[in-house]
Amino acid sequence: MDIFTRIEKPTLLLDVERARANIRQMAQKASAQKVRFRPHFKTHQSATIGEWFAAEGVKAITVSSVDMARYFISYGWKDVTIAFPVNLRQISVIESLAQRASLGLLVESVEVARVLGEKIRSAVSIWIKVDVGSHRTGLAHDAPQPFLSIISELSRHSHLKLRGLLAHAGHSYRAINAAQVCQTYSESVERLLALRSALLAAGSPPLEISVGDTPGCTLSPQLGPVDEIRPGNFVFYDVQQLGVGACTPDQIAVALACPIVALHPEREIAVIYGGAIHLSKDTANWDGDHIYGLVALPNPTRQPGQPGWGEPLPGAYVASLSQEHGLVHVPKPLMEQLHIGDLLCVLPVHSCLTAQAIGRYLTLEGERILMMPLMG
Amino acid sequence: MDIFTRIEKPTLLLDVERARANIRQMAQKASAQKVRFRPHFKTHQSATIGEWFAAEGVKAITVSSVDMARYFISYGWKDVTIAFPVNLRQISVIESLAQRASLGLLVESVEVARVLGEKIRSAVSIWIKVDVGSHRTGLAHDAPQPFLSIISELSRHSHLKLRGLLAHAGHSYRAINAAQVCQTYSESVERLLALRSALLAAGSPPLEISVGDTPGCTLSPQLGPVDEIRPGNFVFYDVQQLGVGACTPDQIAVALACPIVALHPEREIAVIYGGAIHLSKDTANWDGDHIYGLVALPNPTRQPGQPGWGEPLPGAYVASLSQEHGLVHVPKPLMEQLHIGDLLCVLPVHSCLTAQAIGRYLTLEGERILMMPLMG
Repeated sequence: MDIFTRIEKPTLLLDVERARANIRQMAQKASAQKVRFRPHFKTHQSATIGEWFAAEGVKAITVSSVDMARYFISYGWKDVTIAFPVNLRQISVIESLAQRASLGLLVESVEVARVLGEKIRSAVSIWIKVDVGSHRTGLAHDAPQPFLSIISELSRHSHLKLRGLLAHAGHSYRAINAAQVCQTYSESVERLLALRSALLAAGSPPLEISVGDTPGCTLSPQLGPVDEIRPGNFVFYDVQQLGVGACTPDQIAVALACPIVALHPEREIAVIYGGAIHLSKDTANWDGDHIYGLVALPNPTRQPGQPGWGEPLPGAYVASLSQEHGLVHVPKPLMEQLHIGDLLCVLPVHSCLTAQAIGRYLTLEGERILMMPLMG
Repeated sequence: MDIFTRIEKPTLLLDVERARANIRQMAQKASAQKVRFRPHFKTHQSATIGEWFAAEGVKAITVSSVDMARYFISYGWKDVTIAFPVNLRQISVIESLAQRASLGLLVESVEVARVLGEKIRSAVSIWIKVDVGSHRTGLAHDAPQPFLSIISELSRHSHLKLRGLLAHAGHSYRAINAAQVCQTYSESVERLLALRSALLAAGSPPLEISVGDTPGCTLSPQLGPVDEIRPGNFVFYDVQQLGVGACTPDQIAVALACPIVALHPEREIAVIYGGAIHLSKDTANWDGDHIYGLVALPNPTRQPGQPGWGEPLPGAYVASLSQEHGLVHVPKPLMEQLHIGDLLCVLPVHSCLTAQAIGRYLTLEGERILMMPLMG
């Protein structure tokens, strides 16, 4: 029986071959350029998928929460950066994790550096978070003084090991093409280098540089003089990445298989069981529309090595989502190929959020892969 | 120790008193107008909260998935409408549930009616889904012929009991004020009544009428000549409902308590641990901004009967979300009251999606309330 026959409800399909090829490609790029590869595991959140990275020589990882650090450390990972501003309310869990692994923490204020100095007993690596233009969080790259204050505070606590400057050029996601992505990447690196020069001139100890958005790390031919990259999304890619040119459709490694529950040819709409709680409500601009995903047909006669779903159907896209409903715009001629009870495969706009929402994968070979459980 | 002291990460607070008052108010309104109250349980998804409805005399409920029907039937609910187009891929689970409870199903095509007639053996109630203007799904209210075809098909299967016409005026959520909501509600009811008249004139058996969006059921003084209402969101309300005037701030019964992890006074931004995976990415228009939530301060010295969080802070709102980060815009004078490690309480834009994302509640009395588990 093919995997599609037994799918009853929204199911996140994973093309293992594509995911492993994506991992291999990024690992090789980093290795060829002698840059440490510290992939972000928030996209897949799975110990099994983590093993595929280990098979490519990855030893150091990035996570986005203390819970995620605990999960991966429990699976044997020994070098983990929590790329999120330290949550002081989890300080005792952080301390217990620091006893079991080499832990990296993000600091962006003297106050947090001081609290860590007082409340953490084990040695931890400290990265200072830099805002290189995304304006999410971090200290502005063009004002060295606050960095020097933090560096001074850190020097008072011998177990807080200053590692360097860390940035996420998240504004690359707002780029409209590959050239813009590359420009954002190189500009970010330049800003970090300029900041480091200023800090070293003011007496700072040596500082590593860590960067890592998927569009920039994928599209920039040269990663530049950085010490490590931390991309995450590239393991699956998605429509957002397709939109900026960071991947091709046949690199997208996940698709949400959704049952068709109603057809409205007169409105060119197929209603699927697959809504905001499955896909998330992230949108992408696509040919002038705000879309929640592209759609493809499943490939039930798939042989090993063949794709599990076809190319994105031209002119078709997820037009809106409510809690459990998805409305798929399907041009009339395509509509005739669809039947109630069939499956449509939705290529998600943002694979990280879709994976998180579904919480598990089904490979094209029919194997279930679990993710980190929701922790209480 | 107050409940706030032990909160380490994003936690969905539930004000039980407010939720029970919201339930009581809607139950009394339906009862006074002699309309069956079949609340939608997709908002809370909790057996415990279901008991609060039972205490107000509720016997019949609405759910949005087969899994949710199974969950509530396992907790003793005997009269359950699955308000979602029948998913033919779950037909065997549907049959097993129909053997244990009085099950209502939604049909909007002859094809699905025929398949149900052939594959379901137990008696089930059938509602025909009507599109009264929201254009999500359902058959257009102004074209009786497709309804008559379905009614004719249903008459061939004695175990498919035609109950009536069901609509969800979801476009009331796009209203900008209470008057528009009431107009949408009454227009929807009129459309259903006109459709019923046409169908009865063409020989249809008697048809009940079921409606049920929270704004309409809350704001319309008269529910009109309908047989049942199915609102769900009103149990918690949220910023979306506040925006259309369907609730006051002190009726909002849930808030996501989020640790502050960074402060950027120069940009008027507080960064919270609380992102898209906690709040969902639904937005509301609020004073010209697209926002992801309003924010309030926790009330750690709360005595029984007092609110757990304050009024929404003027001029403050969740301005953007990424996977785990929330960026809260906080006007400068308010910024001085905030400290890293403090909690902010976020009133969600869409409480249904936030509850689903978090999966459990913490009451102001410190009790944990579980929701339906993610089913594999």
